[in-house]
Amino acid sequence: MKNRQTLLMEKARNDASFNTLELTCLIYGGYDNVERRRAAFERVETRLGVRDNKKLPRCYTGYTREDAYNEGLEEGKAAFEDGLQHQHAFFETMTPRCQLSNASPFGLTGPMFEATVRFCGLKEQKDVWLPLTKSGQIIGAYCQTELGHGTFVRGIETTATFDQQTDKLILNSPSVSSTKFWPGALGFSCTHAIVLARLVVNNTDHGPHFFVVQLRSLDDGTPLPGITLGDIGPKMSYNGTCNGFASFDHVRIPRMNMLMRYSQLDADGSYIRHGQPQLLYATMLALRGVILKISGLQLAQAVTIATRYSVVREQGVGFGDKSTTETVIFAYKTQHFRLLTIAAKSYAIFFISEAYRKEYADLILQQEMSDHSGLPYMHCLASGLKAWSTQTVADGAEDARKCCGGHGYMMISGIPDITATATALATLEGENYVLWQQVGRYLFKCLDNLEARKLIEPQMTYVAEQYKSYLNNVTPKMCPAQGNDFLDHAVQLSIYRHRALRLMTKAWVSVRSSSKPVAEAWSEHMLSIIDAGRAHIEYIILLSFVNAVATLPVCISGELHTVLDNLCSLFALSNLINPTSVNVISFIEDGHLSSTQLDRTRSIVSHLLERLRPEAIALTDAWDFTDASLRSALGCWDGNVYERIMSWVKQMPINQKAWNENQGVYQPGWREWIEPVLKANL
Amino acid sequence: MKNRQTLLMEKARNDASFNTLELTCLIYGGYDNVERRRAAFERVETRLGVRDNKKLPRCYTGYTREDAYNEGLEEGKAAFEDGLQHQHAFFETMTPRCQLSNASPFGLTGPMFEATVRFCGLKEQKDVWLPLTKSGQIIGAYCQTELGHGTFVRGIETTATFDQQTDKLILNSPSVSSTKFWPGALGFSCTHAIVLARLVVNNTDHGPHFFVVQLRSLDDGTPLPGITLGDIGPKMSYNGTCNGFASFDHVRIPRMNMLMRYSQLDADGSYIRHGQPQLLYATMLALRGVILKISGLQLAQAVTIATRYSVVREQGVGFGDKSTTETVIFAYKTQHFRLLTIAAKSYAIFFISEAYRKEYADLILQQEMSDHSGLPYMHCLASGLKAWSTQTVADGAEDARKCCGGHGYMMISGIPDITATATALATLEGENYVLWQQVGRYLFKCLDNLEARKLIEPQMTYVAEQYKSYLNNVTPKMCPAQGNDFLDHAVQLSIYRHRALRLMTKAWVSVRSSSKPVAEAWSEHMLSIIDAGRAHIEYIILLSFVNAVATLPVCISGELHTVLDNLCSLFALSNLINPTSVNVISFIEDGHLSSTQLDRTRSIVSHLLERLRPEAIALTDAWDFTDASLRSALGCWDGNVYERIMSWVKQMPINQKAWNENQGVYQPGWREWIEPVLKANL
Repeated sequence: MKNRQTLLMEKARNDASFNTLELTCLIYGGYDNVERRRAAFERVETRLGVRDNKKLPRCYTGYTREDAYNEGLEEGKAAFEDGLQHQHAFFETMTPRCQLSNASPFGLTGPMFEATVRFCGLKEQKDVWLPLTKSGQIIGAYCQTELGHGTFVRGIETTATFDQQTDKLILNSPSVSSTKFWPGALGFSCTHAIVLARLVVNNTDHGPHFFVVQLRSLDDGTPLPGITLGDIGPKMSYNGTCNGFASFDHVRIPRMNMLMRYSQLDADGSYIRHGQPQLLYATMLALRGVILKISGLQLAQAVTIATRYSVVREQGVGFGDKSTTETVIFAYKTQHFRLLTIAAKSYAIFFISEAYRKEYADLILQQEMSDHSGLPYMHCLASGLKAWSTQTVADGAEDARKCCGGHGYMMISGIPDITATATALATLEGENYVLWQQVGRYLFKCLDNLEARKLIEPQMTYVAEQYKSYLNNVTPKMCPAQGNDFLDHAVQLSIYRHRALRLMTKAWVSVRSSSKPVAEAWSEHMLSIIDAGRAHIEYIILLSFVNAVATLPVCISGELHTVLDNLCSLFALSNLINPTSVNVISFIEDGHLSSTQLDRTRSIVSHLLERLRPEAIALTDAWDFTDASLRSALGCWDGNVYERIMSWVKQMPINQKAWNENQGVYQPGWREWIEPVLKANL
Repeated sequence: MKNRQTLLMEKARNDASFNTLELTCLIYGGYDNVERRRAAFERVETRLGVRDNKKLPRCYTGYTREDAYNEGLEEGKAAFEDGLQHQHAFFETMTPRCQLSNASPFGLTGPMFEATVRFCGLKEQKDVWLPLTKSGQIIGAYCQTELGHGTFVRGIETTATFDQQTDKLILNSPSVSSTKFWPGALGFSCTHAIVLARLVVNNTDHGPHFFVVQLRSLDDGTPLPGITLGDIGPKMSYNGTCNGFASFDHVRIPRMNMLMRYSQLDADGSYIRHGQPQLLYATMLALRGVILKISGLQLAQAVTIATRYSVVREQGVGFGDKSTTETVIFAYKTQHFRLLTIAAKSYAIFFISEAYRKEYADLILQQEMSDHSGLPYMHCLASGLKAWSTQTVADGAEDARKCCGGHGYMMISGIPDITATATALATLEGENYVLWQQVGRYLFKCLDNLEARKLIEPQMTYVAEQYKSYLNNVTPKMCPAQGNDFLDHAVQLSIYRHRALRLMTKAWVSVRSSSKPVAEAWSEHMLSIIDAGRAHIEYIILLSFVNAVATLPVCISGELHTVLDNLCSLFALSNLINPTSVNVISFIEDGHLSSTQLDRTRSIVSHLLERLRPEAIALTDAWDFTDASLRSALGCWDGNVYERIMSWVKQMPINQKAWNENQGVYQPGWREWIEPVLKANL
């Protein structure tokens, strides 16, 4: 039966100018894929019994650490087995909670354990381990970080000391801070791990190397002698897996468990390095591509929930207006400004992640022909995109949550967990502030090369063409655009490009002209370097969005084309005037844009918002998220918000128990703590 | 025994130029108060058994909804009773988790239930209920918001219909969306509530009024007939209390349970309104003052943890530098830039909350003499400060958490819960975007009054003196400051004042000169109105910081004076150049500050950071937070981070059970989900 909220939702859904399925097909690469993806979700969600959206999802019952882990195991297994059976990879990035790799103990075997063996192992080593990972007989973890050591790999303390007599390596954790800490699935799930440890041969420290280590008995799961394993306890999210710790007390492993493609250790203790593990970077680059993609999906999930809620939630103005009529909150300017700009970002991330995937595929082809020259650019791109997208998504998801008012604070709104998973991505796989510096380092190298008249990567041509005029300060300062020129993507790009060039040349000159030692000068100008990196990446992201819209498949309708084009302009222009944009001052501090131009931009943004408002539900529906994957009382497809909230809340165990067993009283609390207070002063 | 981390902490602590206790006394109002506060914490923490910082705090054991509530009840009772016994109010804002009112079911009786009765009740009504709240015989809740209705009070649906025959009021929830939803302590703890409902007499709707309603039997806690009560389930934090829902099915209450100071309902059904409940606003103003204060304390807690961790956590540069030597991460520019600017904000909030407290006390004195003329200004101030501080604190606490890298993601770091409580404040007691508009409305009224040559509040003199030159566009555009002028607080204030005046006059002109209806024009310019409000409030906050530093008690040492003066300048100036500052573009888009001046500001900020770096630990120690109230493995006073993490992690029940009972295996998971996968393809 329809009620006020479901009718409002129906209306908002019908407002769109384009066919949602068209956009869904664009997102997932065609109708066949959309169908296969839907079928896979249906199979797995049916098996897990989570398709009834009137039922309170288990994760909101207020369960223990153990319950969360059990749920992760069950869900991970279902998704993993479905993927094996149907040969698809939807769940690598799209479990019910959006990312198998960190959310479930079964997710890291492929992208981390297997990939490291594949890239760093000898043929005979691959022949041993890869068949086992493929068939599910190894559940792998990847142990790099230690309690006291994160990003800085050279600082790790765990040692693998060669014992020539027995031809064994002795793995040891020499201190509390050397405890391996954080690896996903390490606590209680994995059977094997890649362990990064310093190779020591005859008292010579050869630095960090990879070792394959069996951690548990395959019979009963008990840790092998000398190995202590455990869970690191509750985290903000990802409690479906057992991020764990491991310490090694002189654990002996065969010499051949060291991955030897790039560094060979012979039985006589002789050690040879065969160059750098260039291919290994491919693992990291692939992983950052996955993070980029899933971060975009997380933002899309958050904005889907918040937009759906906003078109059915009604509220009065509260002042001025004396009436009691209420308006759906999406109609308020701040609300659709916030949500539509966030939606634009989710699409920006989608398009750049598609572009990244293609660049990555090209790189792999090159690398297979031993051409590693594309690595530095891709490394810069991966670092910057990961840092930008994860920060953007964490902030955007949290703002979407705040757009839901008080109800967004309930776990059943589904957004708190999305925000919590998104914010993890800002730290894992490269802390963002470290990554921004890596982007800066690459930009500096580019400028160094250009000054030395050396070649630079083709993707950086925009720098080669124009940096001189910035160094010589002969570039025209004022952006000449006026009126509707700002809707021209070329104008938008020129504004972003100008900022990037100005900031990168400025930072480079500051550091290179400093009289201080390089490291000191670097530290002094760190904020400018980060600003420059961010500006470069924002230019690249806008460029990919503009390119994607310009090269949409011919089958795309004019209506959808217009919507995406407007969304792209909204992305480009709202960033200039959004009070919460990062480092927005740098767009204008050199006088590139005048106050008049900014005011013009503000009216154009206003106009774009008016045009995009009716498309909001379609733009979020297009992601095709199932209700079960959103797990949100506010964000189900039907818009039946209030009935669902009350239904879910009433199913909470604390309520069920109080009502069914104790006439509505929470007995332990009443007796032990409330009654004594009430009766103390009688 | 000392280890590397505790030695690093000792060193960082000794670096300070001033005596920490001096600052602690300034914060808490003298040495006597510091001593009393310490004694109260010691008593309550001892009673709760939480003073041993080697013991894993219960909240991290991964407990259920029920466990969280039990803990909240136990802690709340201990704090509440200690407060009663020793006549102090430390725990109203400072339980182990910083805020009793929302964190514990015992916290709202005073500030919400009792305050409403006091301000809106007749003498005979106060005589009935106030003695009961004072002696703890009533545990009160405050029921305003409904499932479908938040900020907009006129939209509430619950009705209280007068039945003349029986002289009763019939309380009723006519729809799902009218269910009272969110009130703290409502689920299972409170005995009585203030319920806001529409008074209906003879089919006339008189709008929302307050009613005192007994919800539960005092004998056994069962809900009274017709009343359904329950918990709303897990939230991002505040799970120590039972935010709840209530629905009323024709519940009869005596007519005299309507609070009648401002609206009288006689037995014959005649209804008279006696003016506006002006005093009631005092409740809201007091509450926002408390939120302001505790939000500052929450930010201080987060930055205490992150700073302490940052002076003992070591990490290498990761690139460039080839050495393996590591540096404490606080030494990195981005790290101390982020943490010191956050610390500066925590002090800015402290000083403005002190200033607010004094203004509020003056207002109450005035109001007691029936002079309510101070209300509009205070209402604007309260709205703006609440919106600014809660957003600043939520963002700052989250950034402090990110400063802790991966370890900040563990719940045992203590910051996730601080962030989660802080972010709640951005929504509760007035959603921030609504509040910003209220600030804007006040500013518009000021300008309207000035234009009409009417009086305005004395605190707004700065507007009266200068707005004309902004309206006439004759104000000098360029800030004349150069070099170290920027360290002059008068210069800093002039920059903030200029921005505020420019934005408020601009927004006002846009709306007042619009040809559209007021409500439409308001909506169209909503973003500018909010910007103007924020700029005004940031000026007021800086002004209070500057004033506080200028009028420190004479006993304050020169060293501490210098540190606070530098901190104030850091607050003022870093905001101009911090990439994550909100709406920073408005400082410069009119050309008020040139690129050269901004670069000069950047170097001055750099210089201030160098001077403040050695003071960081002292600045956070000064808040005098106990280890038990921080509940952080990263942020204990001794700096013994790694040993404490491992010790707490090993105490996790999931680990204890696996090790003590199952040889290191998590049995249910292994048997049910892992083993089947491992053996499936054998």
